[in-house]
Parts: sequence; structure tokens; C-alpha cells
Amino acid sequence: MKYTILTLFKDFMSEYFNHSIMKRSLANKAFELEIVDIRDFSKDKHHHVDDKPYGGGAGMLLSVEPLYDALKSVKQSNSYVLLTSPKARPFDQKKAMELSKKEHLIFICGHYEGMDERIENYVDEHISIGDYILTGGELPTLVIIDTITRLLENTIKRESLSEESFTNGLLEYPQYTKPPIFHDLKVPEVLLSGNHEKIRKWRLKMSLLETLKYRKDLLLKHDFSKEEISLLKELLKDLKSDRL
Amino acid sequence: MKYTILTLFKDFMSEYFNHSIMKRSLANKAFELEIVDIRDFSKDKHHHVDDKPYGGGAGMLLSVEPLYDALKSVKQSNSYVLLTSPKARPFDQKKAMELSKKEHLIFICGHYEGMDERIENYVDEHISIGDYILTGGELPTLVIIDTITRLLENTIKRESLSEESFTNGLLEYPQYTKPPIFHDLKVPEVLLSGNHEKIRKWRLKMSLLETLKYRKDLLLKHDFSKEEISLLKELLKDLKSDRL
Repeated sequence: MKYTILTLFKDFMSEYFNHSIMKRSLANKAFELEIVDIRDFSKDKHHHVDDKPYGGGAGMLLSVEPLYDALKSVKQSNSYVLLTSPKARPFDQKKAMELSKKEHLIFICGHYEGMDERIENYVDEHISIGDYILTGGELPTLVIIDTITRLLENTIKRESLSEESFTNGLLEYPQYTKPPIFHDLKVPEVLLSGNHEKIRKWRLKMSLLETLKYRKDLLLKHDFSKEEISLLKELLKDLKSDRL
Repeated sequence: MKYTILTLFKDFMSEYFNHSIMKRSLANKAFELEIVDIRDFSKDKHHHVDDKPYGGGAGMLLSVEPLYDALKSVKQSNSYVLLTSPKARPFDQKKAMELSKKEHLIFICGHYEGMDERIENYVDEHISIGDYILTGGELPTLVIIDTITRLLENTIKRESLSEESFTNGLLEYPQYTKPPIFHDLKVPEVLLSGNHEKIRKWRLKMSLLETLKYRKDLLLKHDFSKEEISLLKELLKDLKSDRL
């Protein structure tokens, strides 16, 4: 996987890859990284890359020319060009899986006041991280790269991935570490029991409970196993009798 | 507004406020900022803040003690404590508006392998930016802060805000800047006409078209004006006769 980022904020974008998992994954060659400053493609002596909108209105728009030239300088035959924009259905874990199979992703970071519509002719897909408005495409680009990178080889241990929220369609079960008692709050006894089968069952049941409590919508899409159905019945009984 | 961020990656988080609108808004005192390194509250001489999960499993969990101590050091009577977590309904523009009215937001950035469940006892609200898994809570925290900051006084000009995607429940109309022709792609003539009323109508119609094409779901929630209904009828006629 190679990521290319076209941005006006190269320093900030670079900084994200100097920490934690991103730094390690880059060192382990889980991916290649290229960060391009769109201003380098300005033909203006002041390095301007934006201009006033035709027809009037507030704000400045990112011009199509420097963006096009920046894109041309990095695009290969296997590149897939993404533009952060509110036009797309919000990004989710399934889309992350799909994008993680590509060879070269190019991200065009949107400008906070908009960009010339014509850049869309050179884009393969619009991508949005949610229904809210940000000052630019830099954070959405990092969010998407972060999510995809977790799915690449050489980043996170496989067993960690398979137990996480959304991966199996349920929220994760609650987790605890030392101390066993903190301000009267106790770690559930089953976790201290050493009985692996009991712990596994409790965790699955708690996953179901968390999802039922906080994200019923996920249950509607969930493909239940026999064990999950029987645990869900137990849960509903427990809830009725106030045992939870 | 004051933002306090509890994080393991203070350098990266600080960097975001050194650029563009965030830098200007901070300088203009649109908000106050405090970034706290959770490691400063470790009681361990190696500054560890994580430990193995009870009951076994992959990864290390952020311990409740240093988090609690960090939180205690910054919490005031007007503080509202947010934890980035997949348990919440995804964040949206409406929630951003609501949070922009608070006086002090404290963000606890989740740890990439999980955290001790008991920290939830000290949190006012779970917050999620979407149904995807990130390596930590740092990017979601910046996304939320960025979205909220745009809504504060002294950040973005009011007229800019009111014409943006989602604010009026529709996607934004297409925008264009120089040159008038780029690689055979022309700026729509109406925008060069200088006729403000025609331009206003065209933009509203295009907003409706963009939303119809890309985000029909937004139309379902939309409260149409009379003018919008008549433009929508025109659009549907145009689409039928292939005029678009």
C-alpha cells in the first residue's frame, strides 16, 4: 500500500506519522507515504492556490490548476484518487476493508472554503467520514488512513483485530486491568476466576448487552449465531428480573 | 469555550493548533486550550499508564488510576467530560451545535487497545465520529473540536457558515473559480452573467440536484420551502427529458 496526500498542511500531516502505531507501521514498511504540498504547484509568485468564486459569495476556492498539476505529478496506472467531500455516504469499516485492498491511494484534502468543482473530473471516489463540517480535508484523510492502516499486514496483531467493536458487528465487551478495586468499583469476579470458557461466554454476553444498550441499530444488521441467540434470551430474562 | 484534552500524544495534538483557522481562532481567543499528557499522572517510574487485561486477551489497557488523576486535576464545576468511544450514536452537526454551547469540554482520548471500563463512571457522554475503528481517540477529538470551533464566535464569517453543506440540510451547490475554461471544462454561463437573482436560483436548484444525486437520505429529513418545491419539480422534469 502506498498513500499519497495532497495538502496545504504538510507539517501537520507529517507529524501524525511520527507517533505510535503509525510510526512503527511506516518503519515496518506496512505502507509507503508521500505527502505533497499543493502550493509547490502554484504558478503564482506568492504561492497562492485559491481565488474568488465566480458568481460571488463568501470565501476563497482552491483552484483547479495547481490541484490538477499536483495530481498529475503523482498519479500512476494503479492509483485510486479519493476526494474528501460531503457528497459521499459516510465512510465505514466495510469501506475501509475495501480500500485496504488497493495498491495506491491518493487523497486530495479539501479546502475549508471549497474548491473548484472541476477537480471532480479527475477523482475516482468521493469520501466523507460523517455528517459534520470540518475546516478542511486533513483530519478526514488521517481518519481514513488510520482506519485502513490497522487492517494492513504488519500493523496490529490479528487476534486484537478480531475481537474489536464492529468487526463482528457487535460492540466490544467491557475490559478491566489493575487494580481489582478502585474507589469501590470492582472488577467482575468472573474475570478473576481463571475459567476461560466462563470468561469467553461472559464476554460474548456483555458484548450483546453493550450493543443492546447503546447501539440497537447494529443488532438489526447482525447475523446471530445459535450461542448468541441463547445468550440474548438469557439477557432479556435478566433485564426483566432486574438482575443487571 | 475551553477545551481540555487528555492524551498520550501531546506533541501531535498541539501541532493541529499551529495552522490555519485553528491557529487564528486560538490567537483571537475564540477558545482556550489545555493539553494534558496522561503519562504525567503515572505513579510508575517508567511512566507506564497501561496494563494487561483481567481474564486474558490481546493488547494492553489504559489503567483507570492515571486517567482519573489527570481528570481530577482539570475538572471544574462547569466541565463536561467526553470520552471517544464506539458506544455513542455517531456525532453530527446537530450535536456539534449542542456542544458548542458548553463552557468547558474535557476530551479523554481513548487508547488504541482499550481502556479500563471503570473510567466511564467519571464521564458525562460517550462520543463517536462514525462506525469505523481508529488506533486512538486523538483524531476523533480533533474532528469534534474542529467542527465545534467553526461554530464559535470569532472563527468563520457568518455568511460562510450559512451556505454550507448540512447547515440548511442540503449539499452545497458547485463552485468555480478562474480560469473560465480548463481542459474543455467550462464554468457554467449563469455564474458569469452578473445576474444575482438568476445566480441565487441556479445555486439553490443545483443544491437540490446534488442532494438528489448523492444524498437522497438528507431530502427525507428536509423541510422544503415553496421555492424549493417548485425548483425540485423543474429538476424532475429536466431529468426526465435528459436536459441535465
